[in-house]
Amino acid sequence: MKYSRFFIPTLREAPADAVIASHILMLRAGLVRKLSNGLFAYLPLGLRVMRKLESIIRSGMEAAGSLEIKPTVVVPAEFWKESGRWEAMGESLLRVKNRQGMDFVVSPTAEEAFTALVRGELFSYKQLPLNFYQINTKYRDEIRPRYGLMRAREFIMKDAYSFHANDESLDEAYRAMGQAYRRIFKSCALNVIPVRADSGAMGGSGSEEFMVESEIGDNTLLICPECEDAANVEKASCRNDFELKNEDEARKAASAFPPPEIVDTPGVKTISELEAFFKGDLPATRHIKTLVYHAANVEHEMFKAKNEFFAVCIRGDLELNEAKLAALLKAGEVTLAAEADVERLTGAPIGFAGPVGLKQLPVIACQSAAALFGALSGANLRDKHYKNVCYGRDWQAQLIADLRVVKAGDRCVKCGAALYEKKGNELGHIFKLGKKYTLAMKLNYLDEAGVEQTPTMGCYGIGLDRTIAAVIEEHHDEHGIIWPMTLAPFHVVVIPIQNNAAVEEAALKLCAELESLGVEVLLDDRTERPGVRFNDADLMGIPFRVVIGEKNLLQAKVEVKRRGEASAKLIDAVCAAEQLALEVKNGIDALKTGS
Amino acid sequence: MKYSRFFIPTLREAPADAVIASHILMLRAGLVRKLSNGLFAYLPLGLRVMRKLESIIRSGMEAAGSLEIKPTVVVPAEFWKESGRWEAMGESLLRVKNRQGMDFVVSPTAEEAFTALVRGELFSYKQLPLNFYQINTKYRDEIRPRYGLMRAREFIMKDAYSFHANDESLDEAYRAMGQAYRRIFKSCALNVIPVRADSGAMGGSGSEEFMVESEIGDNTLLICPECEDAANVEKASCRNDFELKNEDEARKAASAFPPPEIVDTPGVKTISELEAFFKGDLPATRHIKTLVYHAANVEHEMFKAKNEFFAVCIRGDLELNEAKLAALLKAGEVTLAAEADVERLTGAPIGFAGPVGLKQLPVIACQSAAALFGALSGANLRDKHYKNVCYGRDWQAQLIADLRVVKAGDRCVKCGAALYEKKGNELGHIFKLGKKYTLAMKLNYLDEAGVEQTPTMGCYGIGLDRTIAAVIEEHHDEHGIIWPMTLAPFHVVVIPIQNNAAVEEAALKLCAELESLGVEVLLDDRTERPGVRFNDADLMGIPFRVVIGEKNLLQAKVEVKRRGEASAKLIDAVCAAEQLALEVKNGIDALKTGS
Repeated sequence: MKYSRFFIPTLREAPADAVIASHILMLRAGLVRKLSNGLFAYLPLGLRVMRKLESIIRSGMEAAGSLEIKPTVVVPAEFWKESGRWEAMGESLLRVKNRQGMDFVVSPTAEEAFTALVRGELFSYKQLPLNFYQINTKYRDEIRPRYGLMRAREFIMKDAYSFHANDESLDEAYRAMGQAYRRIFKSCALNVIPVRADSGAMGGSGSEEFMVESEIGDNTLLICPECEDAANVEKASCRNDFELKNEDEARKAASAFPPPEIVDTPGVKTISELEAFFKGDLPATRHIKTLVYHAANVEHEMFKAKNEFFAVCIRGDLELNEAKLAALLKAGEVTLAAEADVERLTGAPIGFAGPVGLKQLPVIACQSAAALFGALSGANLRDKHYKNVCYGRDWQAQLIADLRVVKAGDRCVKCGAALYEKKGNELGHIFKLGKKYTLAMKLNYLDEAGVEQTPTMGCYGIGLDRTIAAVIEEHHDEHGIIWPMTLAPFHVVVIPIQNNAAVEEAALKLCAELESLGVEVLLDDRTERPGVRFNDADLMGIPFRVVIGEKNLLQAKVEVKRRGEASAKLIDAVCAAEQLALEVKNGIDALKTGS
Repeated sequence: MKYSRFFIPTLREAPADAVIASHILMLRAGLVRKLSNGLFAYLPLGLRVMRKLESIIRSGMEAAGSLEIKPTVVVPAEFWKESGRWEAMGESLLRVKNRQGMDFVVSPTAEEAFTALVRGELFSYKQLPLNFYQINTKYRDEIRPRYGLMRAREFIMKDAYSFHANDESLDEAYRAMGQAYRRIFKSCALNVIPVRADSGAMGGSGSEEFMVESEIGDNTLLICPECEDAANVEKASCRNDFELKNEDEARKAASAFPPPEIVDTPGVKTISELEAFFKGDLPATRHIKTLVYHAANVEHEMFKAKNEFFAVCIRGDLELNEAKLAALLKAGEVTLAAEADVERLTGAPIGFAGPVGLKQLPVIACQSAAALFGALSGANLRDKHYKNVCYGRDWQAQLIADLRVVKAGDRCVKCGAALYEKKGNELGHIFKLGKKYTLAMKLNYLDEAGVEQTPTMGCYGIGLDRTIAAVIEEHHDEHGIIWPMTLAPFHVVVIPIQNNAAVEEAALKLCAELESLGVEVLLDDRTERPGVRFNDADLMGIPFRVVIGEKNLLQAKVEVKRRGEASAKLIDAVCAAEQLALEVKNGIDALKTGS
């Protein structure tokens, strides 16, 4: 491909709103352009990279036994109403009314479309498992799209969905996808951190996120330096520095304390105010913090009401992890109750709630609170707290679970080492969805006995745009992008430095030889001076730069420089194409096969 | 690929709403499924066909010098407001408001997005011409989507846009695209009719549509059996059976008639009523039919008002072609005036309008009316007509043009042969857009003299889904699809008819050999009986069916049948793969290279 017939509008400077390396370099190297806030157009060079990534992902999906299909981007809202997400998804869902007033969705994800499609085709257990994917346009109406392709409104996603007769079959597909994902990201030369994750609004349990470290990441990861276990903060656990007692032990522990006693705490509301008030006699580790939450779409079998308030108790020094709470209650969303609700339900202003004698609310306890004896808690009366509160004797919770936010310094569940934090961006995600969608959308099949059954589901996503951005984040220097061979838009750029027939002919000949060997080559035939073309080659990040000049040609040599390496070398012109083709192939193989 | 690991849900019967062959067969052969009205999902087999078509189109675009890019599907409404199409497009444009209340469009076409993109990049004449395309999702909010993929709401379109410094450069790109289109459709084994077309709401002039004949076509084509010239009825001309006189001739012709004379025509309004009333003395060929039209967004330099009423005169036996009228006035839309407007503007009820003495309206004449002397016309008075009306003496038009609807039997402009009609479906369309978008959206560049100039534009579309549907319409029989080799989802289907090791091994061996030769092969390893598998092979339309059976294997033979041919033949198993690979290659070459 000749540069003069291609279109690579490189820029010296990126616009001011580009602040991270990938955003800056994708604009500067002419890979993409901004059409509007959060909307980017791929230019020819960027699209070549996208096509290569698509091809890597297709190979991975094929290996995992997934078949490509293509539903529409605009889908009927009725599917989303069936699944319940028309209401649950909130404003990030782009909703459209057509001329006949019918509701549609510009797909942000496609559990519904795939489930609806399979519903029309699945009759018998013999057809299972089924595993389909698409690589298609998605739209998420981000409030604040930013960081370029890392968080755009419209993006390209690979999303796969699998349907199974039993958990073993789902496990198998899930494992195969996990392996495929590792291979895919390895092929992209990406250092991903596989992370146990909360499955958020997607429903179900059993999931793994594939993260890349990033200063501007949306996710906080807790990583163990010893066993390298990583978890999203939303789901991270840590070794407890308390122990739950059985009934006898609890009775014994409580016997050491007199019954709860009211203490006047005028205007003393927060944990730190209470610590100060008691002058260190009662540190936060001996407080029970009680928060009132409203939970929407509760599906935990213990609670009948779909929408309910809960009192949630946790040890005073710890933060409550709302994602864990929502997962425990199987709730669509949990939000702190408004002040008026707190007063109505506890009888006291915010700051004085506690589990003792609390009748109007179901009580949920973090293990950290249920392990406390002789603790301080709110008394559900203005300006009053209880001392000597003991779990089991003075209060009980309907559910006890780990609800704490794990933070740097907490200890690894497995090995006890102190965890550290990193910010991460999610590139991929694999989930065991379970039957959330198949039940809601009434997808059934007949088993061997002719009995109607509901299949269980898995879903598996990769964001293509942000994967490309992540590759650039990981592979660049001050001069520009350094593409891994597998994703490079061209493998070789050939730059003839003089404008004369011998040099041009040698350049054309080399390009033709390279192309006949399957090497993708860009001939920079512009009349710009060499320095400009060298800088553009570095900026575009093409793995090999071949400079053809009069002086070297006299010795039948050409100059080859590997992007990212400091120095160039002279090689014989006659075998340059073959040598480069071999290096390109080796570069690709090294990433794709791991050899 | 093994059938058992693929997903081809063939059907015995198509749903009742499928009435045309392509719709029926795409559903029955498991290529697509309906997700909702006008929304179809491609299943694995259909997607393979789509990918092949994409690849054919990409080669064509490369040959025409167009570079692939990928703007977003959802684009800001501001671009459409700049171009004026936010208002002009009407309800077929799917409009979306995001959470911040900003307007967006789900793209039905992308003149605006490409113009906006180029606006950010174009500075100098040296960069021109520019030529970009995308293959991307489009959406048109059809009132009544039907005929399956022939007229869906969401569809895949290849749309290219070129930008030029002058008309010669545009002509060159337009010609190259025309050639590419001919090659693309030929590669698809489609018999397309290139048709001069009206460019409709797209603006500009100079365009060609690529039509396929279809009973359910949206377009009426007029075709000359002699010179094979074809035109869309919206733009078709024919040889005139009248002649326009110059001023002298007109004066002379008029002198043969007395001045206009009022005739009482109580309640006689229509042409046929008038013919009956005058008992054949004044046939429709001597009537002037006067219609009052409202034209919106008039851009003809002769008329200052953007929205205006016009009186349009045509000979009584002819139909007025509204597309020609709109093109003449450079109007966005023309519609017949309401009764009240006709009364207000002509002073008489509908049926009595005429050009004589008509003061309140600009008069436009079809040549057929301006050639009439001694004609009958309305008198702009209730129940009155004029006799003896002569053009030039009694009335004059501000514009005279060909405004008639051409119909079967009218004579070819070039050779005089009687034209015939066909219904056609448009698969592709190439336009010279001119400066409509570049002016409206202020896309400029500096010419050699440093003067700001506006580039001229071309645009070039192909509907991929309907191209696939058209291929099936043209290539099928009562058993199913008959794919051309270039688009076949697989080249060969291998059917082992017995369920034993020798047969299965021979089948696997042949498949492996075929695949190593680059032949795409489907191994029908299902346990269905042979008849079912033969029927499915015919339905899917795979070009070669190879049956492997015990008896033939004893003689080291396999049975090969070409889809669409009546009989099978036995060939030596040992050279079957090589022979089939050669035939596949020849089949592809014959379509792609025309040899």
